[in-house]
Amino acid sequence: MDIGIIGGSGYTGGELLRLLSQHPDAHVAAVTSRSKKGQKVSETHKHLRKIYDLEFEDLNPDDVASRCDIVFTAVPHGTAMQVVPALIEGGAKVIDLSADYRLRTDVFENVYRLKHIDPRDAVYGIPELHPEVAKQTFIANPGCYPTGALLAAAPLTAAGLIERAVFDSKSGISGAGIEPSEVSHYPNMAENIQAYKLTSHRHRAEIVQELMHLDANLKRISFTPHVIPSVRGILTTAHIFVKKQLCEEDVSKIYRDFYEDKPFIRLIKGIPMPRNVRGSNFCDIGFEIEKDSDRIVIISAIDNLVKGASGQAIQNMNLMFGIDEITGLWTPALAP
Amino acid sequence: MDIGIIGGSGYTGGELLRLLSQHPDAHVAAVTSRSKKGQKVSETHKHLRKIYDLEFEDLNPDDVASRCDIVFTAVPHGTAMQVVPALIEGGAKVIDLSADYRLRTDVFENVYRLKHIDPRDAVYGIPELHPEVAKQTFIANPGCYPTGALLAAAPLTAAGLIERAVFDSKSGISGAGIEPSEVSHYPNMAENIQAYKLTSHRHRAEIVQELMHLDANLKRISFTPHVIPSVRGILTTAHIFVKKQLCEEDVSKIYRDFYEDKPFIRLIKGIPMPRNVRGSNFCDIGFEIEKDSDRIVIISAIDNLVKGASGQAIQNMNLMFGIDEITGLWTPALAP
Amino acid sequence: MDIGIIGGSGYTGGELLRLLSQHPDAHVAAVTSRSKKGQKVSETHKHLRKIYDLEFEDLNPDDVASRCDIVFTAVPHGTAMQVVPALIEGGAKVIDLSADYRLRTDVFENVYRLKHIDPRDAVYGIPELHPEVAKQTFIANPGCYPTGALLAAAPLTAAGLIERAVFDSKSGISGAGIEPSEVSHYPNMAENIQAYKLTSHRHRAEIVQELMHLDANLKRISFTPHVIPSVRGILTTAHIFVKKQLCEEDVSKIYRDFYEDKPFIRLIKGIPMPRNVRGSNFCDIGFEIEKDSDRIVIISAIDNLVKGASGQAIQNMNLMFGIDEITGLWTPALAP
Amino acid sequence: MDIGIIGGSGYTGGELLRLLSQHPDAHVAAVTSRSKKGQKVSETHKHLRKIYDLEFEDLNPDDVASRCDIVFTAVPHGTAMQVVPALIEGGAKVIDLSADYRLRTDVFENVYRLKHIDPRDAVYGIPELHPEVAKQTFIANPGCYPTGALLAAAPLTAAGLIERAVFDSKSGISGAGIEPSEVSHYPNMAENIQAYKLTSHRHRAEIVQELMHLDANLKRISFTPHVIPSVRGILTTAHIFVKKQLCEEDVSKIYRDFYEDKPFIRLIKGIPMPRNVRGSNFCDIGFEIEKDSDRIVIISAIDNLVKGASGQAIQNMNLMFGIDEITGLWTPALAP
Repeated sequence: MDIGIIGGSGYTGGELLRLLSQHPDAHVAAVTSRSKKGQKVSETHKHLRKIYDLEFEDLNPDDVASRCDIVFTAVPHGTAMQVVPALIEGGAKVIDLSADYRLRTDVFENVYRLKHIDPRDAVYGIPELHPEVAKQTFIANPGCYPTGALLAAAPLTAAGLIERAVFDSKSGISGAGIEPSEVSHYPNMAENIQAYKLTSHRHRAEIVQELMHLDANLKRISFTPHVIPSVRGILTTAHIFVKKQLCEEDVSKIYRDFYEDKPFIRLIKGIPMPRNVRGSNFCDIGFEIEKDSDRIVIISAIDNLVKGASGQAIQNMNLMFGIDEITGLWTPALAP
Repeated sequence: MDIGIIGGSGYTGGELLRLLSQHPDAHVAAVTSRSKKGQKVSETHKHLRKIYDLEFEDLNPDDVASRCDIVFTAVPHGTAMQVVPALIEGGAKVIDLSADYRLRTDVFENVYRLKHIDPRDAVYGIPELHPEVAKQTFIANPGCYPTGALLAAAPLTAAGLIERAVFDSKSGISGAGIEPSEVSHYPNMAENIQAYKLTSHRHRAEIVQELMHLDANLKRISFTPHVIPSVRGILTTAHIFVKKQLCEEDVSKIYRDFYEDKPFIRLIKGIPMPRNVRGSNFCDIGFEIEKDSDRIVIISAIDNLVKGASGQAIQNMNLMFGIDEITGLWTPALAP
Repeated sequence: MDIGIIGGSGYTGGELLRLLSQHPDAHVAAVTSRSKKGQKVSETHKHLRKIYDLEFEDLNPDDVASRCDIVFTAVPHGTAMQVVPALIEGGAKVIDLSADYRLRTDVFENVYRLKHIDPRDAVYGIPELHPEVAKQTFIANPGCYPTGALLAAAPLTAAGLIERAVFDSKSGISGAGIEPSEVSHYPNMAENIQAYKLTSHRHRAEIVQELMHLDANLKRISFTPHVIPSVRGILTTAHIFVKKQLCEEDVSKIYRDFYEDKPFIRLIKGIPMPRNVRGSNFCDIGFEIEKDSDRIVIISAIDNLVKGASGQAIQNMNLMFGIDEITGLWTPALAP
Repeated sequence: MDIGIIGGSGYTGGELLRLLSQHPDAHVAAVTSRSKKGQKVSETHKHLRKIYDLEFEDLNPDDVASRCDIVFTAVPHGTAMQVVPALIEGGAKVIDLSADYRLRTDVFENVYRLKHIDPRDAVYGIPELHPEVAKQTFIANPGCYPTGALLAAAPLTAAGLIERAVFDSKSGISGAGIEPSEVSHYPNMAENIQAYKLTSHRHRAEIVQELMHLDANLKRISFTPHVIPSVRGILTTAHIFVKKQLCEEDVSKIYRDFYEDKPFIRLIKGIPMPRNVRGSNFCDIGFEIEKDSDRIVIISAIDNLVKGASGQAIQNMNLMFGIDEITGLWTPALAP
């Protein structure tokens, strides 16, 4: 496959390049960056020296579409919608890593306070929840927080068992991107934890949309994100309040059945940790039932840049092209 | 005041020494450590070199009680109950930093799976909630997690407004003590977050006891702790579900009134962070009300070793001796 | 003493405020910041909430000089020289924390590539090396790296024993200031170490000047700095090559004699670490002599913002006013 | 190739497993651990869940040798020498990751204070310096610090240009292994840097042996290691004092010629950082010449567990079997 990456100078772009370098069927044919055109890709992503000899190109969607079988758009929300139509019309398959096509248009416009210039349907690309990604030509790749939250809660939601869900998520800072900011300034990150957007993070809309897709009656859904002193990783602590008492074997069975044959889901006894998925496309899930209570705590761990972004995008690519979804992604985490 | 510290070789002992070195009325007369007797205190606590020239003594409660006006017991649970009776009988005021006297005896025995050999009442030493610490001779100093959780939720609880409270707490590793362990091993801590005791942490019993003391009808109380890659600090994310719609000014007023004249409570607009309280006795509290929802997110930040342990103990000491509670504690956090 | 701080919105300004809040004779009368005038000091330095109720003023040197006994200039190099003359003429004592007055004017202009508009002599304010700071009215406060390097090597230098000195220094990132940058971006700092200015860091000129002041024959002086994943602290590894074989007792005696009665120097057996001086004005020094070699490794540890900047400035202030140099500074490190 | 790993429960064992899972010609046939026999490998190395279904076996060298084409010994020094003879006699190729066979026997016994029970020659396995690893049946895999130091200094050493070399090395803590210790305790690591064995680290003997192999006249070699708050990575700051003035192009040419066709060496303009090699087998090297001085600063960056241990071992394996040395190792670093 000839592959294009629109917006290759950020972290998700760099991660696509890192992962695709290990993919037996992938050939990166074009990487664009308007601000860095003409520069070596490995000047920006210094860890890719000797791995890629490519240069960033200027953005020319028609040209990229003509040279590529599939194009990843790794640009900010609001920008993707300006590029995607030309790519699709140019005949390329497209996976959009921005937020532009994840939500129903009216919800998007409300949440992102932005008029959508290219309303169009896309499959929401969590393959474990949307097997219909296979054979698609256009996928909206999910947000990192929603990936962690949805994989944690989907089985119980689909079983119609959840009364209320509170997602308390803890993320590494790489989700905020490659540009330095006050939040990412080391003296503000180290030995600290920063809660933010306590009730109003935009990713909540994705979580609500997808959970209600599984159970239209589930409406009490809360989400609060935090940044911890880490580069990668999202740990989601899902405080789930259920409609009826469940025992451990009940819950285990629901999860085992739901995730049967899903290679990247690892159901574990014990408590997942980001260190065990870092750099990999795995999502580890564990849970504990509170005694004499309606609460179940479900923990999921993903790498926000892999299963939460670029790895999942490649998983989607594999399925779109009809090849084994683990191709190029069957690598363990980097630990310790 | 002549002060004794039983069990001075751990982190809370070291922190008592650090803080007391700045207290104008304090004179540390005795520090015990059975394993390090005869060694310089500053051999263990190397940051105290030139500050203290003391040596650790063997444990002799009668002797310590006779030489001290007040004694802090900074020993593990189960050990404190073996020492406290002799100290009290010896005429010393006592502040116990262990868990031994925080809970009703039957609850303690159930939670800690340990027969109590010295059932006796103690005031639970959060001065903001228990002004009766003043003039006491024996105080049970609270746990670190309960301090953060209770200060976050007490005002709304006392107002009878809470239906359900979920405390999702994130702590530095110093709460686990000075002894190396698999959890505290740097490669397991760095770039990671470790949830643990998802539904069954012992500190939950303190939270329940004290919240029900403020509102006997509040029974739906959940607590899940995490260790983040930090040495100090606890951020408590309190997901509070209320019985009736409240606006921002309602909640602000409840907190302002409740914490009026409490010097160590800082009610802030914006979101508290551990970095702003590190090394200090302050507790920063902020909140946000979710739109169209019954949820309020309250965030508190404390230093687990100061307001969550040794600083609060000294605050209690001040009140027990009838002096201004801020004496020796009015120091800002170390930031950045 | 009424105290002014010019440029109070950065880390050294914040650290002056933190330390002065504990100083029994200090009253901060004015803090300036052109970019933040009219804002609360505690909006920028949130850890100082409830400690200071001051607002930043616009910069007016004459006015500040008239209201203050002493003024600290905590502004970038090149800016200090524009402010200092008016402060001195206004009758205030001045301690400049910038680089503007540390070097001989011709050296300064060469190293900083900047014309000096106010050539004037100042005492180089390391009190352990320049006891003449006492009774001065104008002090050039040293750089952080030079403080660590000079305190490590001064005794052997003064004894005329050094043939060659290689200073390999490791610093926390707070030395680079409060403004976010690519270097301070958490994903570039964490799990990394960044060497920089391998042979040409400007602080080398201070080290050379001061060592040659102690031994005019010592000319082979090298300095290479690194940033490690820490906020505070400088560890200096001084690889010292000596002219003749020395035994441990020789070196110990030289250091003991040289630093006799210097309260903030702690000569230790074992190896100093930044954690034991964090937040304090101490400088820990230890050494080891290589067997069958002319090398001695001397290690010093300081907090770059305290002994390497604001703490040392206050130590100088104390001496300038004829009071005990430890006043307000006799606080242990924050550890763990 | 059927592969055995003796001592698979530590970090180098885990890293061999991680890397071999991506090697097209590798089949791990046996992993031993006396303390964990019968347990799943993925219970210890949780990041390998779903990647390996193996169990640890008890240690039986004859049996392992009979089932494997090549065996890695990843056990402590002193233990390897008890296992290696049986493996070799059993017909397996062997790569020993311990220190037992790296040094001349008399040097080993002196440095490690241990009688050697199996004196035998081995090629010192840095393939860039010892191309004779190809076709060997027994290799002593180098220490992590020596790998970083030797690759930094070898070209100038081989050119006979070095008068004195001072290696100031900074390592992540994973080099100290999987067992928790006081040094690895998070509160001792975070926001700190620990120099140790200032003049007497055992790895110095390897550095001396190998540099003198390249230039028998180079005798002034110093080495001081430090642990920084990182899990992986070694940055070596080589302060090299040369016999004659060299310009940048001179040095560049020496390095380019020396490392021509060495795939894992990346000579870079600018300064190497561990983040750009983390998880990979690359060694990045850069340098700067001090003006008006005999000093050149050479910086190398490696991942201590990969190029400094398990990756280099696999590189050696590839060469021993006559296949391309990059097989299974041509993966970029995990960054950010």
